[in-house]
Parts: sequence; structure tokens; C-alpha cells
Amino acid sequence: MNIFEIIQKKKQSKPLTRQEIDFMVEGFCNGTVSEGQMAALLMAICINGFNREETASLTLAMAGSGDVLDFSGRDWVIADKHSTGGVGDKLTLTVAPMCAILGVSMAKMSGRSLGHTGGTIDKLEAIPGFKVDLPNEVLMDILGRVGLFIASQTANLAPADKVIYALRDSTATVDSPALIASSIMSKKIAAGAGAIVLDVKVGSGAFMKTLEEARNLAQIMVDIGKDCGRKVSAVLTAMDAPLGNAVGNGVEVLEAVEVLQNKGPADIRELSVELTAQILSLAKGVEESVARDLAEGVLQNGSAYEKFRQMVEEQGGNLEGITSKAPHKITQLKAPQTGHIVQMYGEICGMVAHKTDGIIFHKKLGDYVVEGQTLADVYLSEFSDEDNILESLSKAYTIATEKPLAAPLIYEIIR
Amino acid sequence: MNIFEIIQKKKQSKPLTRQEIDFMVEGFCNGTVSEGQMAALLMAICINGFNREETASLTLAMAGSGDVLDFSGRDWVIADKHSTGGVGDKLTLTVAPMCAILGVSMAKMSGRSLGHTGGTIDKLEAIPGFKVDLPNEVLMDILGRVGLFIASQTANLAPADKVIYALRDSTATVDSPALIASSIMSKKIAAGAGAIVLDVKVGSGAFMKTLEEARNLAQIMVDIGKDCGRKVSAVLTAMDAPLGNAVGNGVEVLEAVEVLQNKGPADIRELSVELTAQILSLAKGVEESVARDLAEGVLQNGSAYEKFRQMVEEQGGNLEGITSKAPHKITQLKAPQTGHIVQMYGEICGMVAHKTDGIIFHKKLGDYVVEGQTLADVYLSEFSDEDNILESLSKAYTIATEKPLAAPLIYEIIR
Repeated sequence: MNIFEIIQKKKQSKPLTRQEIDFMVEGFCNGTVSEGQMAALLMAICINGFNREETASLTLAMAGSGDVLDFSGRDWVIADKHSTGGVGDKLTLTVAPMCAILGVSMAKMSGRSLGHTGGTIDKLEAIPGFKVDLPNEVLMDILGRVGLFIASQTANLAPADKVIYALRDSTATVDSPALIASSIMSKKIAAGAGAIVLDVKVGSGAFMKTLEEARNLAQIMVDIGKDCGRKVSAVLTAMDAPLGNAVGNGVEVLEAVEVLQNKGPADIRELSVELTAQILSLAKGVEESVARDLAEGVLQNGSAYEKFRQMVEEQGGNLEGITSKAPHKITQLKAPQTGHIVQMYGEICGMVAHKTDGIIFHKKLGDYVVEGQTLADVYLSEFSDEDNILESLSKAYTIATEKPLAAPLIYEIIR
Repeated sequence: MNIFEIIQKKKQSKPLTRQEIDFMVEGFCNGTVSEGQMAALLMAICINGFNREETASLTLAMAGSGDVLDFSGRDWVIADKHSTGGVGDKLTLTVAPMCAILGVSMAKMSGRSLGHTGGTIDKLEAIPGFKVDLPNEVLMDILGRVGLFIASQTANLAPADKVIYALRDSTATVDSPALIASSIMSKKIAAGAGAIVLDVKVGSGAFMKTLEEARNLAQIMVDIGKDCGRKVSAVLTAMDAPLGNAVGNGVEVLEAVEVLQNKGPADIRELSVELTAQILSLAKGVEESVARDLAEGVLQNGSAYEKFRQMVEEQGGNLEGITSKAPHKITQLKAPQTGHIVQMYGEICGMVAHKTDGIIFHKKLGDYVVEGQTLADVYLSEFSDEDNILESLSKAYTIATEKPLAAPLIYEIIR
């Protein structure tokens, strides 16, 4: 086997074998395949595509390039959840304890902020004392006793994906559905969960702008999961405006707590219930409508909140610590005119929130507002430039006379 | 301008501008465009293609990356000839003096051996004393007085082509007609000739296996030449079996001398006349049939041979020196059976000849041979392994009962 013939094959749009894909991934990691050779191959894949079998092979090759966690010896299923990334998305914080209390353990390896969306790890670090980097034995002990942990990805998961992604990023070879899907799934497969629910975001604030693109990506990821022997489903959800009312690490944790306490915004609650129900259905075969009722139940009876509090304590955190920290200054963004909010760019909201201690939105996409009414409370930090922040944030909005059509929060589920 | 957007454009099959192509070539040469970026772009070009304008832009960008010779100040046209490479191709040695005696100067920068085909420079070095690396002033002086020189490419011609070619070679991005054509033409354009005749080889022994591929490549090169303000035509010629009877540096020079002395094999003579006529037609506007008669004439009257001898002397060579060198041992390849030679792989003949002091073929493609008859004389060197060489050479032949259809030597001319 040689890399030249492999590149040639893909250039001619012929499918690659599992062995050829292993050879390319291993070769690039050990330096026998050059940067130029890998880049040429990636471009050929972008243009000529990868079929289902090739995509699964690539996922397995990258998943197998580092540590592979194996929970299969346990007598309960470990579940995982992945979001393609959205502004105000604090769903891991709600879904993980909801699942745990319903008997599906979550060993969650999370990432940090990517661009305009905050990472779950950044959010958890807003809890005073919370440790995201506990030793593996401690995490496994917590998992056994509490049924969940959320930790920073410390294991060497899919290192081949890391180096290949860096090359894709510099060579304009990112936007291939097969490459995106295998990159995401390689880490999920290596992380060892038997049941995986994917939250694929669609809309102006997401990487996938159209339902068609999102559906295609979701289907590829679900297929990969099945081909790798995992139970997987994907929920296609709207990402135009921010999710919930809170954007910013600390305020998002507080909002997640509210939802777990049977309060909080309806969209976060609805998605928390749906994602939990999907995991329950995959991991335990519970019928979906029953699973939704069970998920509602653990919010209503406070048990999911108790589970979350328990995990925070086990990982060294003090939930009360967040609330006691007063913001430096709170300022208001006011509506510049009367009308309906027809656009509210999540991307802008996310980027502005990064420069503050958090934003609480009082009006959502579609709401009617009166000139001068408060659209959002902005928690300024000591270093925030108030005028600049308010001006930038105002650019996220378009206010018009006609009420926009209500868009669904959940588009469809791909199983 | 940034390379990421340029790669993205070509990935989406959009045409690149002259500025973008300059940016990519300059960037790769100065290191601001990485190996991976260039390889990804080259693969996108291979798959999605380059249009006529892009191909001319790439040629000019590479031609302009190093020294650019300029003969435009002279009152006579400088011509150039390029062959895409064939076994037994000694046509530069005949055509250059034929053109010079007919008033078209040839300032010929030639290359060394590439794979199984010998380079003109290797052939000339078989002439004792011949200097291929004379200083530029000496070469220009010879050009002015004699009307031709043939020297090794000393100038820094199209260095961008060199580095890009090396990357293409390792990344399976060689076989793009636009990239092949611009690579060849960039060196021709930089070498400064006003009239260029391309000998594009077609057949089992050539890079272009089919007439259609060769025609496509030839048309692209002719278009490039015109777009860069040069007069260009391409002659599509057969390359299945070796050209002429002699393969090997010394014996090829002797065969060229024979043709210049109005003797020698018919195919070399026919091609010498046609290529010379094309150059004459391009450079001086002579009608083609008249040009062919003129070319025949300089072979018949011995003036082309005199011109060649003069050039050899001016460049320090001693033609008689070749003939006086006796081969170490001459052995014969015998026909293994009776029948017609239906195949005679030039590639094998060329590779075997490299291990000898030369091969003289007595029978050509299509000839009828009787078992035991001599097919070729092999001039063994001191280090040649006779059995191995004869066995390898025999693999070049297929002998069968039916006479193959006679194939033309010259397929067509693209102007």
C-alpha cells in the first residue's frame, strides 16, 4: 500500500478501503504521510466525497488513534450527548443529571469555548471550587456512586482528529459533511458511550444554516454511530436566537439550575426533556412518550436538581458561590423602536456576552416590544466598555412591524 | 487576498484571477503559502480544472519567478523546440542545425535524462570534449556567429515550476492537463524564444497514451503560447516503439549525424523535416510545403551536417571521438519465433539501453522476422550483465502471425 495510490484513487472518485484509510490516518500521525499528501487527499475527499463505509472507517481510524474508553464491562449503559454548538446552550447541565436520576449514567467529557459559543467546561468553572480535571479514578468513583460526572477532556481522545482538523482548518477543507461527522463521532466513539444523542443545531447562529444541510450531517453521524455498534439518534433544533434567557458562563449555570428546579425558560425545559427522553429511549428502550413523562417528572419532583447539586459537591463546587457574586454594574439595552423582534443574531449575542459577566434577555425572537422597553440586562465586568457593548449588542436585533412566523424549536429527530 | 479564500474558490470550481494565481505561486515560493495549502489547491485544480485564462496566468506566474531571457531586441527570431519525451528521440540534434542553416536561430536549453528517455544533454556529452555549460557570453557569441547552441539549462528558469512540480510529484497531482501544459510552457516562455514547436508524443511509450489526451494537451500548450504572445504549433507524433534504430547516448548522436548526412532511418528523417518545416513556417512565415522542401534540401546538400559539426567544434567537441570508441562487447538479441513484431515497448527498450553502451535495432515494429534472426545489436559495457539484459530486452517484444496495421508516424498538427 502506498499513499500516492490512495490519493490517486480518491482523486478519481473511487472508494477507499478500511485498510487504506487506516494507512492514511496512521501515516499522517507518524509522519510517513506528508502534510501535502494529506492536504491533497482531504481536498479530494471534500470534492469527491466519502461514502458511508469510508466515513465509518475514518471515524474508527481516528477514534483508535489514542485512548479508547471502554465501559462495556459494566452492567449499566453509559450515555453521551453532543451539541454542534449554540449560543446559550446549557443543556448538558440539565440533561446529564436528568438522565442520571433515571438510571442512565453520563460520563461526560466536555470541551471549552469554541468561537462565539461557550463550552460546558467554562460554564462549570463559574461555580466556585468546581474541579474539571479530577484524576480518572476519582471520576470513575463518582460515576459509580452518583451516576454522572462532567469533566474536561483529559484523556488522549482521538489525537488523529486533532492533527487532521488543524490541517483542514488551514487548507479550506473543513466543510465536508463526511469529515465534519467523522471528526465529531471519532471523539464520541473513543469516549466509550453506548448510547449517544446528538443535538444538531440549525439556523443563522449555527454552523449548519439550512435544515437540509443539518439533516444530511445528522444522518451521516447517526449512520456512523450505528456502523460502530452504538445506539445513536439526532435531534435537529433551532439555533437562530440565543437559547433560554441567559448567555454567559455564570448566568447560564443559574438558568440551568432554575430549569432543574422546575422553573426557567420554556425552550430550555422543552429541549432538556426531549434530549433526556431520547437518551432514555436509546439506552433503556423506554417508549418515547413515556420517556418524556419520566423526564418531566424528575424536573417536577426536584430529583434532577438534587442529582446536579450532588455532582457539583462531589466535584468540589459550591453552587451558592455563584449567586453571591454581585456583578460590577448592570446596564440595560433598550428597544430603539416599537415592533416585533424579527431577528436576533445568536452569533452577535454570544460574542458580546464574552466581553461581559453575562446577559439576561427579557425579550425573545418574535416578541412585541415598545420603544424604550428593556430588551436585556447586561452584567458589565470591571473591564467592560459599556457604550461599545450596548452598540454591538443592538446590532443583533432587527425590529419590524410585522410579526414573524413562529418557528419550531425542534425540527425533527433522526434515529 | 488570502490563500484560504483562493482554495475555497477553486474547491467550488470557480475561476481564479491572474492576481490570485500570482499570489498562490509567489506565496508558495516565499513560504507564506504552506505545503498543505498548495497541495489542497493543486488537488482542487486537478479535479475541477483550470480554464484557458487561468492556465495562461499560471504559466506567466511561474515563468516570471526566475530569470526571463529576452531575445526580442535582435533582428532575427529565436526558435525553440520541445519534446514531451520519447525513447530514441534525437530530433533536437537534427532539427537545431537544420533550422540554423535556414536562418532561424536556436538558443537551445536542454535537460538531462528523465526516467527511461535520455536527455539531449546526456547525448551531447557522449561527444568527447563537448561543453554543455559554457558561460552565457560565450553561448551568445556562438549564437550570433553560428546561429545555434545547445546547452544545459544554467539559467534560473521558472524556479516556481520546480518547487510546484516536486510537490505535485509527491501528492498525486501530476496528471492535470492544465498543470502539465503550464509546467512545460513556463520554461519555454522564460527561455525567451519567439517561435516554439512542440513535439507531443502519443502512444504506449509516451506519457499521453491516447490521441485524444495528446490532442488536448497540445491544444492547451498552443493556446498558452499564443496567450503569452509567442508563435506556437504542436506536432502529434507516434511513440510506441523507439524512434530510429539507435537507443543510447553515443549511438544516438551517430544516428543523428547519419540523418544530417542524408542517410539514416526514415522516421527520424521524416520527423526532422516536419519539425524544421513547422519552425520555419512559424518563425519566417514560409508556406509549409515550401518549408518541407527547404528542410529536405539542407539534408541533401550536407549544409545541415556542416552546421552541426560547426556547433560541436564551437562547443569544444570532437565528433570523430565517438566513432573511435569501440564497445566492450557486442551481443545479439535473436527472434524467439517467426512472425511479425506487433509490439515493441519503447519504455522497456529505453530502460535496458540505460544499462548498456547502446542498442542498434535491426527490425522495427511491424517487420516480419524469422526465428533466430537478429533483432538488435546490444553494445555491452564492461559492467553489463549480458544474460539479464537480453532477457529484459526480449520482454519488449510481442511477435505474432498477423501483420499489425501500419500506424502513422505523424498524427496531426495543431496550430
